[in-house]
Formats: sequence, C-alpha cells, structure tokens
Amino acid sequence: MASVVEFKKLDNSIKKPSLDPLMKLVRTDLDRVNSTILEHMQSPVHLIPQLAGHLIAAGGKRLRPMLTLGAAALCGYSGDRHVKLAACVEFIHTATLLHDDVVDESELRRGQETANTVWGNQASVLVGDFLFSRSFQLMVMDGSLHVLKILSGASAIIAEGEVQQLITTNDTTTSETAYLEVIQSKTAELFSAAARIGAVVADRPKDEEDALTSFGTNLGIAFQLVDDALDYSARQAELGKTVGDDFSEGKITLPVILAFRRGTEVDRKFWKRTLEELDQEPGDLEKAQELILKYGALDDTISRARHYAAIARDALGLFSDGEPKNALTEVVDFCVEREF
Amino acid sequence: MASVVEFKKLDNSIKKPSLDPLMKLVRTDLDRVNSTILEHMQSPVHLIPQLAGHLIAAGGKRLRPMLTLGAAALCGYSGDRHVKLAACVEFIHTATLLHDDVVDESELRRGQETANTVWGNQASVLVGDFLFSRSFQLMVMDGSLHVLKILSGASAIIAEGEVQQLITTNDTTTSETAYLEVIQSKTAELFSAAARIGAVVADRPKDEEDALTSFGTNLGIAFQLVDDALDYSARQAELGKTVGDDFSEGKITLPVILAFRRGTEVDRKFWKRTLEELDQEPGDLEKAQELILKYGALDDTISRARHYAAIARDALGLFSDGEPKNALTEVVDFCVEREF
Repeated sequence: MASVVEFKKLDNSIKKPSLDPLMKLVRTDLDRVNSTILEHMQSPVHLIPQLAGHLIAAGGKRLRPMLTLGAAALCGYSGDRHVKLAACVEFIHTATLLHDDVVDESELRRGQETANTVWGNQASVLVGDFLFSRSFQLMVMDGSLHVLKILSGASAIIAEGEVQQLITTNDTTTSETAYLEVIQSKTAELFSAAARIGAVVADRPKDEEDALTSFGTNLGIAFQLVDDALDYSARQAELGKTVGDDFSEGKITLPVILAFRRGTEVDRKFWKRTLEELDQEPGDLEKAQELILKYGALDDTISRARHYAAIARDALGLFSDGEPKNALTEVVDFCVEREF
Repeated sequence: MASVVEFKKLDNSIKKPSLDPLMKLVRTDLDRVNSTILEHMQSPVHLIPQLAGHLIAAGGKRLRPMLTLGAAALCGYSGDRHVKLAACVEFIHTATLLHDDVVDESELRRGQETANTVWGNQASVLVGDFLFSRSFQLMVMDGSLHVLKILSGASAIIAEGEVQQLITTNDTTTSETAYLEVIQSKTAELFSAAARIGAVVADRPKDEEDALTSFGTNLGIAFQLVDDALDYSARQAELGKTVGDDFSEGKITLPVILAFRRGTEVDRKFWKRTLEELDQEPGDLEKAQELILKYGALDDTISRARHYAAIARDALGLFSDGEPKNALTEVVDFCVEREF
C-alpha cells in the first residue's frame, strides 16, 4: 500500500507537459511575429486595429504560429521568412475566430466579451475579411507560390469545414466519421499548414514536408477532440473555465455522438430535445455531463485523441533528436493532457 | 418650334449606350469565365455551390470580369490567363456581396431573395469566406505574384472601405470627401484591379497599366455615384426596380449629403430623424426624394459622376482606336446613362 501512495505522490510531483519548452525555443521569433502582427493589422480605419487588437491581445496560446516557428527550428532554418508566415497563419486563425463568433453568436471568448458583442456582427465580419486579405498580402510579400498554394488551399478547406459543421449542428445522428471530417477541415488543416511551412521555408525534401504535414494534421485532430471533451468536463468547470458552449449551441461533438449511440431511447429523446430542438432547461447541461460520464464518452474521446497524438509523435521520428524535436513532442503531450 | 420637336424625336430614337458592344467583343471569353466560375465553386459540401450558385446565377451584369476581358482585348492579349483571372475578380465580388447582404441585413438583391434570407447569415458568411479563398487558389494557379499583389491589396482596401462605410452609416454629417473615400475603396478598387489585370497579363508597359488603373478607378467611382442616385430615383421606381434601400438602412450617400448640406434646419431634423435615429414613417422615402429633387441633389450627383466618367474616358486615350476602345468607352457612357 505504501508504495502506491508513494507512486501517487511522485505522480503528483511530475511536471505536466506544457508549451514552455517550445515557447523557450522560439521566444525571440515569437516576439517578432507579435510585432509583425501589430504592424500589419494597422489601417487608417481605426476600428480595424481596435477590433482586431481586442481579439489578438486577448491572449490565446499563439499555438499555430509557434508550430511554424518550431517546425522551422526543427528543420534547421536560419532565415527570417518563418516570422512573416507565422503571422499569416495567426491572421487566418484570427479572421476565422471573428467569423466563428458571429456564426455561433458567441458572447464570450477566452473569458472576455467577443468582438461581435462589443462592436456588432457587421464589424466582425468585415474586419475578419480585412485580416484575411492582409494575410494574403503578407504571403505575397514573402513571394513563395508554394506557400501561397498551401495557405489558400487551407483557407478554402477551413471554410468548407465550417459550412459542414453548420450543417451537422443540431443533427444528433451525425456520425463519428462526419464529425472527424469537420474537425480535420476546420481545425487540423491550419495546424497542418502551419507546421508544413517550417519545412518549406527551410527548403527541406518532400519526406520532411510530408512528415510535418502529418504531424500538424494529427496534432490538430487531437487538439480539437480534447477541446470538445473539455467543453463537457467537470474539472474544466472547477478551474473556472466556461463549459457547455457546444451544448447550448447544439453542436454535435464526439462526447455527444458516443453518448447518443451508446444510450437508451430515453437518453436519445433527451439529446434530441436539447440539441436538435434546442429546448433546454436549467439542469440539462449537468444531465448531459452525467450521461456522457455514464457511457464513458469523455474518456473515450480522450482515447481517440491519444491515437492521433501517437501518430503526430511518430511523424517527428525521421528528424534528428534535440531541443526542437523534444519541444514539439511535448506540444503533442500538452494538447492531450491539457486542462484548458 | 418644329425643329425642337424634331430634335426631341431624334433624341428619343438615338440608341442608349449599353454594355452590348463589350459583350459582343468578349462573349466567347465570358462563356469560358462562366464555366470557370461554375467549375471552381464546386465543393463536396453541397450547400456551398447551392448558395454560391443562387447569387451567381441570379444574373448581375458580370461587369467586373468583362472589364478584365475588355482590357486584355484592348492590350492585344492573345493568351488565356485573363479568363481565370476574370473569374477571380467575380469570386471576390460575389464574396463581398454575400458579406454585404449580411452586414446590411438585405432581403432582396436583383429582385430575388438574398442568400442570407434563404440560408441564413451564418452560411452566407462562411460561403463568402470559401469563395474568397477559392479566388486566391485560382490566382495561385495563374502563378503571377504581380497579379496576386494587386488583388490581395484590392481585397484589403475593399474591406477597409466596407468598415469605413459602416462607421459613416447613420452619420448625416459625413462629408463628400469621406463618402468619396468609401466608394473609392469599396467599389472603385475592384473595378481598377479588374481593368489593370488586362494590361498585366498582356505584359504591357507601366504607362498602359497605369492608364487602365485610372480608367477602372474613375469608372468605378462614376458607377457607384449613379448607383447611389438611382436608389432615390423616381424613374427607377417606374421601371419596377427597388428604390430606398440606402434610405431604409440609413446609408449616407451623396444625394443625402448634398440635400442635407443645402437644406434648412427643418430639413436636417428630417434627415437626422430618418437616417440617424432610423425613425421612419410611411411617406418618409417620398419626402426624402422630394427634398433631394428640390435641392438638385440627384442631378448634381450625376454631374459628379460625369466628371469621373470623363477622366475614365480620357484614360483610354493612349490606346489605339478600334473595337475594344469603343466598347470600353461605351461602358463608361452606359455607367452614367443607365437606368438600372
């Protein structure tokens, strides 16, 4: 018995995986990315930097641009194209968030009022368009048609994924496969492009570009699966984070898909009432969390995430060991173990 | 007296300027543009071609892509890059319209229900994003960084113009200069880019590229001025076209700016009530039309348009005479004389 207690103690003292090693590796570059973002979101139309700055300054992990910087480091890149391109990636992400919040009618993001709450949907749509255009201007300044092809293709696929998500919203019969297609498009595609660009700027051979593409794709899927699990997590609520956004919007994510398929007819009636008809009462979110727990749907969503995380980790296999590889591997661990 | 009557008769029989000569000149190319549009708006997510097709099939004059085709003809271009790039221009325009209709909460466009009325704002925002991305993918396929720079720059300026328009909406003190800046960005910039690309693909010297840029810019300003005049025109109403959209949305266009500045205190109270507070009663649109007529604001808006049209016409001066130049000159006349 004593040994078990000891083990638990030890386990508690083990440092949780974090983004810190990657942050340490790319800190100087990331500062330059932030300056590039600030510089290029300027406009004589003051509402644009005001609104864009609200979201960009609100924090966020800068995970996607850090992937570009980390992948460039992994590929031994010593130029500075990765800085501008990491800023492009963040601009595309920010434009997507602005439009997402309009589409989802979200009032809060990262604990702050969303831009559409403060300035209205109209301004959010248009400033999103501006950031998206600005991102392409930056890519053109970089001048690589290969990069332009990757990022314009990713943007189209992200939009397709968002439309597909809109279609599956409120549809409790959505299959796990259809759900996976949505998250692959709306989330994993930009992770994939972000990482891949690291190999492209470093002019690495195709197998390394493919490896980073696979790394990004699988990391992105794992990231979104965990995100969708956290939205129903009791622990998340304990930490003071918002839970239940997907539930209140009627989004059909994997925890629900599993609980729906494993549930009884009575359970399914509950899901249909709350998520299809959006007829929700106080206590319904707790009831949803209870059902998801009962059918092991949260644990299994995390298990699925671990599967993709394992693929992402192995994708890094052909790169030489060292600080960049360790840092990117820890990003994978972080994306699965994170509580936020 | 008899001669005056004769003159009027003659005048009535003179053919109104139209887009027909340009249409005749570029018909084969335009058919290929339409095929390119149809081909590239496809997606496995069926809602995308469905929604995009609703707007694209709804007609529209295809004026912007025709400018690219006409300018290419003027420059003696014999390749086929202009077809794909004209499709890019139309995609950007279509994406802008989708987002505009969301921002303006419009229910009708070209006499049909808007996409946001049929499929909701959410789908319109996301399909707009898709078309915008698709446009950049097409440009990348063309492979010219020069063209990419022109069109990504134009897209950013269009978005800036749209945000600026949003800010001036409901502000009756908007100056003519501020209004001109808005229409230059939101409308003239794409006309300008569309025409300029004709010179770029034909690899013409800078003075011709500049001439077509100036042609497009000034044509675009004239086009928008007339558009804004038509929205208050009694003749437009006679033709069964919608009038009063700008009025009901509280958009501050030149007819209003002039009538406001030339009006009495009582008139200004009317404009403030109807356009700033959007407190509108039956008969207010007619009252607005009456005030605009009384102060010559409609005629003077058209006069301003004639000024820019003259510059556009002269910009074509350095090109050799012939069918393309005649056709493009008639486009200028059409944009000022049109009743729709």
